[in-house]
Amino acid sequence: MRIRISQLLASSIFLLSVLAHAGAGSDQEAKSAVEDVLRTQQAAWNRHDLEGFMAGYWNSPDLTFFSDAHETSGWQGALARYRNRYQGEGKEMGKLEFSELRIEPLGSDAAFVRGAWQLTLSNGKTPHGIFTLVFRKLSDGWKIVHDHTSAAE
Amino acid sequence: MRIRISQLLASSIFLLSVLAHAGAGSDQEAKSAVEDVLRTQQAAWNRHDLEGFMAGYWNSPDLTFFSDAHETSGWQGALARYRNRYQGEGKEMGKLEFSELRIEPLGSDAAFVRGAWQLTLSNGKTPHGIFTLVFRKLSDGWKIVHDHTSAAE
Repeated sequence: MRIRISQLLASSIFLLSVLAHAGAGSDQEAKSAVEDVLRTQQAAWNRHDLEGFMAGYWNSPDLTFFSDAHETSGWQGALARYRNRYQGEGKEMGKLEFSELRIEPLGSDAAFVRGAWQLTLSNGKTPHGIFTLVFRKLSDGWKIVHDHTSAAE
Repeated sequence: MRIRISQLLASSIFLLSVLAHAGAGSDQEAKSAVEDVLRTQQAAWNRHDLEGFMAGYWNSPDLTFFSDAHETSGWQGALARYRNRYQGEGKEMGKLEFSELRIEPLGSDAAFVRGAWQLTLSNGKTPHGIFTLVFRKLSDGWKIVHDHTSAAE
């Protein structure tokens, strides 16, 4: 079985052009997928579904969560932190709003997000701050593998 | 001119194996390059060379710097923040130490870093905290494009 060099060249050019377009396409896909995760998290939080909110995080002991200068390790640790902080005695989840989202793809399987968060509580208080998230595209979709959150004083 | 399909297959397998090895190699290269930037920054800080320290950051108005819940935009903004905080009247740079560095490549041209920082001042105080950095491989080397730093209270 033989193949012409001209066919080989044509196939190579076609393949390269597909790859180039895939690069541009995957940037847009990554942004949309990451934005979906964040919108889903916000909606879950606002129906006080903490497990639904936590589905946006990598379910792994290697997940890391920096809250101000404190480090929490693992998905279970992050869940425990949220429960303690927002579902404990006299605590409430309130209404969460993400804003100023800037989603930046890093290669085809990762992205980082800069943004701001604000809670509106029933007593009228509005704790707020900013965050940095690192996402990776895993077998079960785009997940937060690292969260660094700061609260305004 | 003709080429055998067996030659085409052999070439494809060779190319794929080269690409796979390049991926593994570039992960290690990325880690070393990023670690070099951080060690160079630490050394520059400790000889009180703020411009040398700042060479680790992307020299762009698009650099972002989150310090606790405050956002600073651009390389000039970040430099001004450091000057104001560590070179102003009655301020000092002290001795900087990075620790617990975890450098994770994201694709071939990006990485993120989790770590801890501590300053030792001449009065014996040791302000410290943790940070998240996002690096990109740019035409002039690996640079921090986003810094999120938290100080312990």
